[in-house]
Amino acid sequence: MYNITLLLDPRAKTPMYEQLYRYFVEEIRSGHLRQGEKLPSKRAMCAHLGVSRSTVETAYALLCSEGYVNARAKSGFYVSGFVMLETMPALPCRPIMTEIQRTERPEFDFSTASVDTGGFPYSSWSKLNKEVVYSSPELLQIGERQGDAALRNALCEFLGEYRGVKCAPGQIVVGAGMEYLSMLLLSLLPENAVFALEDPGYASIYHTVRHAGRPLRPVPIDAHGMSVSELESSGATVAYTTPSHQFPMGVTMPAGRRSELLRWAAGGDGRYIIEDDYDSEFRYGLRPVPAMQGMDAAGRVIYVGTFSRSVAPSIRIAYMVLPEALLERYRSINGFSRSTVSRYEQAVMARFLSEGFYARYLRRVGNLYSRRREALIAALESIDGVRVSGSGGGIHFLLTNPRFSEHELLRRAAGQGIALRGLSSFCRECVAEPSTLVVGYGGLDDKKISQAAEMLRLAWK
Amino acid sequence: MYNITLLLDPRAKTPMYEQLYRYFVEEIRSGHLRQGEKLPSKRAMCAHLGVSRSTVETAYALLCSEGYVNARAKSGFYVSGFVMLETMPALPCRPIMTEIQRTERPEFDFSTASVDTGGFPYSSWSKLNKEVVYSSPELLQIGERQGDAALRNALCEFLGEYRGVKCAPGQIVVGAGMEYLSMLLLSLLPENAVFALEDPGYASIYHTVRHAGRPLRPVPIDAHGMSVSELESSGATVAYTTPSHQFPMGVTMPAGRRSELLRWAAGGDGRYIIEDDYDSEFRYGLRPVPAMQGMDAAGRVIYVGTFSRSVAPSIRIAYMVLPEALLERYRSINGFSRSTVSRYEQAVMARFLSEGFYARYLRRVGNLYSRRREALIAALESIDGVRVSGSGGGIHFLLTNPRFSEHELLRRAAGQGIALRGLSSFCRECVAEPSTLVVGYGGLDDKKISQAAEMLRLAWK
Repeated sequence: MYNITLLLDPRAKTPMYEQLYRYFVEEIRSGHLRQGEKLPSKRAMCAHLGVSRSTVETAYALLCSEGYVNARAKSGFYVSGFVMLETMPALPCRPIMTEIQRTERPEFDFSTASVDTGGFPYSSWSKLNKEVVYSSPELLQIGERQGDAALRNALCEFLGEYRGVKCAPGQIVVGAGMEYLSMLLLSLLPENAVFALEDPGYASIYHTVRHAGRPLRPVPIDAHGMSVSELESSGATVAYTTPSHQFPMGVTMPAGRRSELLRWAAGGDGRYIIEDDYDSEFRYGLRPVPAMQGMDAAGRVIYVGTFSRSVAPSIRIAYMVLPEALLERYRSINGFSRSTVSRYEQAVMARFLSEGFYARYLRRVGNLYSRRREALIAALESIDGVRVSGSGGGIHFLLTNPRFSEHELLRRAAGQGIALRGLSSFCRECVAEPSTLVVGYGGLDDKKISQAAEMLRLAWK
Repeated sequence: MYNITLLLDPRAKTPMYEQLYRYFVEEIRSGHLRQGEKLPSKRAMCAHLGVSRSTVETAYALLCSEGYVNARAKSGFYVSGFVMLETMPALPCRPIMTEIQRTERPEFDFSTASVDTGGFPYSSWSKLNKEVVYSSPELLQIGERQGDAALRNALCEFLGEYRGVKCAPGQIVVGAGMEYLSMLLLSLLPENAVFALEDPGYASIYHTVRHAGRPLRPVPIDAHGMSVSELESSGATVAYTTPSHQFPMGVTMPAGRRSELLRWAAGGDGRYIIEDDYDSEFRYGLRPVPAMQGMDAAGRVIYVGTFSRSVAPSIRIAYMVLPEALLERYRSINGFSRSTVSRYEQAVMARFLSEGFYARYLRRVGNLYSRRREALIAALESIDGVRVSGSGGGIHFLLTNPRFSEHELLRRAAGQGIALRGLSSFCRECVAEPSTLVVGYGGLDDKKISQAAEMLRLAWK
């Protein structure tokens, strides 16, 4: 039998049962006690150590519940047959700090990537989360490739009701963020596709297309959005567009241009429109325009959206609605893939949508942005020379001040500690409207608006 | 002023404040009440409708909290400037059912993809979740590209202590599942890389490499794992291997073969080993072998792992440890990417690791699998002709029964309603050991083990 050499210290801070527990853990880890070996009986232990039965019982129960030891009925306690390697690392890990700690946030945050999450409904989200974790053990198992049915059903309802999207839940594919989904989508589109991207436009979509080794054509934006005549002459076959609130110009594509684009898509084999419904959640003053997808009779529009701006940047759930032909292709080439989104988060988001929390949250945040936008525009336009455009939706607009060049506007703002971006930095081949900056107000605290405007007034004197 | 035409019904089931609330919602939705328009004062409403002040107050408070209306101090209530489109969908969404409802699970589940989640610590997970949601509002904002520091620090500690991995948290990249991470990794490896994949081996890695358009060479497995001489002669430059418990052969690569592989990698420019530490969490009888990564002095091993098998398939957190050269490349080409994993789930997993829940859970599940494995092997080996191999780790092994051909073994098992897979189905160019099946026991209920073995005994009489 296994020989025990241990003295328990009844005066130590560590309770005796824990001293005994730790002793056995060390013996097992070091290999002194080997798999399958029997521990002394409780009675023998009590007698040997001169401790109470409850001390030994507690220690053995801990060893069992932690998986070091198995109890066999009418036989005793055995070191379990399962082993985990435990070594001390050669070098202790030197923990890193988060980037948030490392880089300070600017005092006046005009970044277009910022989103206000101050009104996030923690208690509802947390309550849904708890209910989902407890009530749905099946969510631990493999989910559906395209995303779980509950979330796709809820998305289908929501997009139909609020965006005029016409689809069945079976056409929806859910994925971990827009970049991932873009990569996936590129692999579904025809091999000889040539991509028309908005110019000026998103840097990240340029990056994704280039990274996938696919040919791209920057296509200029006019007052109605992507120019269809320029699209025609570019020779591109797939047009990526942000019709609700073009980034960065802020143009909302009118119905006429949408029809033209749809006609273009229906007019050639393998032509598609990727409708990124960016910023459609927030419209001010005018009624929102329904999605192009709902007007598409030819099955040429891929509708894409995300919760990263409308709920929170850290929530990695994006979605796309595939037309029939691409859905078939998705199914034929993605036999091995699994959904990239946690099923728990899918289930929480499904209830967040279907139980009305999302619509309520959007209204609340939308109101906040609306008030902030009004105050900011009023403050900025009171500065000599400044005018604002593209502010009908979303959480950014353009600011033009012809008194200085773009470079000089930026330089002077930077002198006051204000970081802004010039419109020209979003251009590939286009020539940006002169003296124009892109102003995001998602990250700008209400209180700072007049302060920031005051500083810009000084800077641009 | 806005003209109100409404009669409240004091005998209706719907409380009067809600009737009033609903009336205004409809007026706003339909456009009768427009943005910026002022609602009648509370006093005027009370007088006009002949209702109590509290009825009007409740209705107005609801309208404010739902974002339809804004209160302006000392002025009154105004329809908010923010609008959401609300249309009725042309076609109501026809909800789909989950695949779990559609396809029945087999009674005896010998699939190698199954994982037992019966012991999942719901209450700890849920408690961590709740704390994280409430206490970390900053987690709503954009996280770190490679994964949040807390999770990478915890992973670094854990992999160092339990797997002998030597790395800094800065080398770790976290992503939404192994397939996504494999895609990402492929894009970092040299453009002229040729991939050696284990044969027999994982179907999904073949798919990923092929899908990325990269050349691949199936390399045979011998009794020690991937054959280095065959690897040499294949001309491949990147070797993908599962040394802890080769899938599907179940071989554990001994130290000698690991050294040979490391020498091979160090011996040529652009050579790398992808060490998929699949199934390393579960070892029976023998002490686990530390990861090759910890023995690599040349910076040629990429260590990859996932929580999909060790915690639950639905948790989409995989990780890789990049050597310096690839880390630089990652940083240079992924400037636009964001982490694909929810920051909440990252934070929960970080605490699950660093507070010891994970190690405890692994011991508990490991014990369960260990007992199940013993019982299943004993039951199967009592069948005439059957022997078992590759069972030293993980949650699957090989079963050989030379009395019948593989095809006949499967056919007869299917006759008893038992679905199994033949080893040959995992072969590309290799010739599988005859009469051999791959048996997964992660999804096999303890109670069903003797029953399933009994049915196989009948089937293979």
